Amino acid sequence: MKICHQREIPVVPQGGKTGLVGGSVAEDSGTLLLSLSRLNQIEDIDSTDFTVTVGAGVVLESLHQTLSEQDLHFPMHLGSEDSTQIGGLIATNTGGSHAFRYGMMQDLVLDLDVVLPDGRIWRGARAVTKDNSGFQLRKLFCGSEGRLGVITRAVLRLYPAARRAATALVAIPDIETMTDAGRIRRRDLGDFLMALEFFDDPILRLALKHIPDLRCPLEDAAGFYLLAEIATSHASLDPEEILTASLERVFETGRASDAVLAQSEAQRAEIWRLREELPEGTLREGRQLKHDISVPVSRIPEFMAKCAPGIETILPGARIWAFGHLGDGNIQLSVSPPFGQQAFAGQDDAINLAVYTAAESLSDSFAAEHGTGRSKPAVADRLRSNVERSLMESIAKAFSPEERMNPGVIV
Amino acid sequence: MKICHQREIPVVPQGGKTGLVGGSVAEDSGTLLLSLSRLNQIEDIDSTDFTVTVGAGVVLESLHQTLSEQDLHFPMHLGSEDSTQIGGLIATNTGGSHAFRYGMMQDLVLDLDVVLPDGRIWRGARAVTKDNSGFQLRKLFCGSEGRLGVITRAVLRLYPAARRAATALVAIPDIETMTDAGRIRRRDLGDFLMALEFFDDPILRLALKHIPDLRCPLEDAAGFYLLAEIATSHASLDPEEILTASLERVFETGRASDAVLAQSEAQRAEIWRLREELPEGTLREGRQLKHDISVPVSRIPEFMAKCAPGIETILPGARIWAFGHLGDGNIQLSVSPPFGQQAFAGQDDAINLAVYTAAESLSDSFAAEHGTGRSKPAVADRLRSNVERSLMESIAKAFSPEERMNPGVIV
Repeated sequence: MKICHQREIPVVPQGGKTGLVGGSVAEDSGTLLLSLSRLNQIEDIDSTDFTVTVGAGVVLESLHQTLSEQDLHFPMHLGSEDSTQIGGLIATNTGGSHAFRYGMMQDLVLDLDVVLPDGRIWRGARAVTKDNSGFQLRKLFCGSEGRLGVITRAVLRLYPAARRAATALVAIPDIETMTDAGRIRRRDLGDFLMALEFFDDPILRLALKHIPDLRCPLEDAAGFYLLAEIATSHASLDPEEILTASLERVFETGRASDAVLAQSEAQRAEIWRLREELPEGTLREGRQLKHDISVPVSRIPEFMAKCAPGIETILPGARIWAFGHLGDGNIQLSVSPPFGQQAFAGQDDAINLAVYTAAESLSDSFAAEHGTGRSKPAVADRLRSNVERSLMESIAKAFSPEERMNPGVIV
Repeated sequence: MKICHQREIPVVPQGGKTGLVGGSVAEDSGTLLLSLSRLNQIEDIDSTDFTVTVGAGVVLESLHQTLSEQDLHFPMHLGSEDSTQIGGLIATNTGGSHAFRYGMMQDLVLDLDVVLPDGRIWRGARAVTKDNSGFQLRKLFCGSEGRLGVITRAVLRLYPAARRAATALVAIPDIETMTDAGRIRRRDLGDFLMALEFFDDPILRLALKHIPDLRCPLEDAAGFYLLAEIATSHASLDPEEILTASLERVFETGRASDAVLAQSEAQRAEIWRLREELPEGTLREGRQLKHDISVPVSRIPEFMAKCAPGIETILPGARIWAFGHLGDGNIQLSVSPPFGQQAFAGQDDAINLAVYTAAESLSDSFAAEHGTGRSKPAVADRLRSNVERSLMESIAKAFSPEERMNPGVIV
């Protein structure tokens, strides 16, 4: 990093390359791509303090495996666990399916080592929950997408492993009922809820069509599906009993038309696989425009009601697929061209802007868990206030006056 | 703020004035003290999205009262709830007794409005869990102690109110056993644990001596006391039963010598009052040096073992009192002069440095939940790395090139 700084070579750090917004892509020749893959040591697992020290290149799945042998849990779960690396997860402030309960990476990082753009090293070296010894630098590096430095090492917050879990897939007639059911689940099951994922029927059909061995355990179709998982580390509680009681209330109040409770680890895996193969299903259908946005949970129906007619006006017949994390209002919205067409008739930007503007108009975020990378700063420039843009530019310049660290991302 | 900027008037924002490090004190005449007390509106409570929008001047206790009427909970609890204000809590990134479970203010703030040093207004305006639309400005403002701007409004994360709680006070022979018991409690009770506070016998005796109507419900003295509180929002669970079962295991393994389970809300309040009056007890004893530090939970015994002889060497007979938050290793350590003396024989700075150096040597923080304010930057200068200091100076300058916002705090 010192040599690059002296020779004025731009640097783009690269983790597991699972990002979806081009944050670890070098646009120009003469750029140094810096792989962190070899910093893959799990250095220290502390089961008293519930922390683990890891190199930036540790793959999330291998961390999960190592921790589970010690009855510990790092509550970050997402589709690309088999290749995504800790450094990249931190740099992009990943969310995933458990964020509504445990927070995003910024909430799980206790400490960081960072190589700064000029080669100096900042060692946070404070693996404690409470540290107010100055500005919250560790939080600022989370989600900085490589603009402020290269994350090399981190101390992460752990939790006791859940001893027992229960998983259900629930069929729900419409989006309002789904939002409502999600709220009730959170009140009922708040102490135990680990995941509350949703998807609509069209995207389920698409995945079932394109992925031959995928199977849905529910008999009848419905407008939406809710995947609820609860778990407890408390030995004397039975999560199946708790989840069943809660499902019964959902049925009694007419909010669900069908449900299945996983009876084995294989059934649990089958239900999760349905959810995790959804992106692959849309991918195999052909070209798509992907959008990752957040709205307050209660405004999900309003967001969808705004989006759909907007897109229909721009490109009649365009198909919309939605899935995401109901617990925190994070929607992954994909748009495919009208049936039989391969492209968006030049309306790509117009469709993107319609989706992001709909999200922004609900006073929310145009970038939820995937970050801005190189594919969103243009959108960001239209939607951010001038004040916010200038604050972000000031921060980038404060850390890297020459702006040669991952140039082009964020701002 | 614009006028102050134009006329070059330094500004010190002021909340509930409950801070302990002088962060809201004006040192020079010609400084404008800016009270936020009149921004005391609770604007919007959203029980679907579990958020509340509040002005910076809202007093924490009044927020708790309003929320409890709607079965909602904002999990920030500390001794000065009757006067501390939200804006100050955010600016100082307060921790409190529930932080090991719910995080500090930075983890509970979804959104902020901030008036910048030059009078421009930044509106975060993104009340969602997942927002990666750029650098995490909202996190950076948390704990910025007024250096980067004036917080005027916030959206906070809420939780369903616990339906039932149980509280116990446990007598434990020594500090190693206490640390050990804390770890077991966290594994056993992780889903429900709300508070895990500790204090040593000398500080309990001091409070009982100085505060006439204070009463300890335990019959026999022990080296340390643990206050454990669990709660659940799940209707069919009995927290008393869960806590009792856990206490039985603590007794069976010989880790406790005595315990009492609160049988009424009055008894619960009595137990909490013991904990909350501890600072008042030391205060009435006379002059003291207060220290707020964090170490990993497992290293609490090591920290105390380092501190005590160090202080004894500097000032023989000096008395040490310790209490704090066992869940996150946050210790409040007070030092009183030797019995019969009123001052520290000029050794104040030496004692302070001994305590902070002991904390720092365990690779940790010299400022846990109280921040740095105006009383710690000198210590900070000795303990921070040059790299960290220069990063913090860069951030301060990026937001306030003239450095007239709360000058003298943090760095």
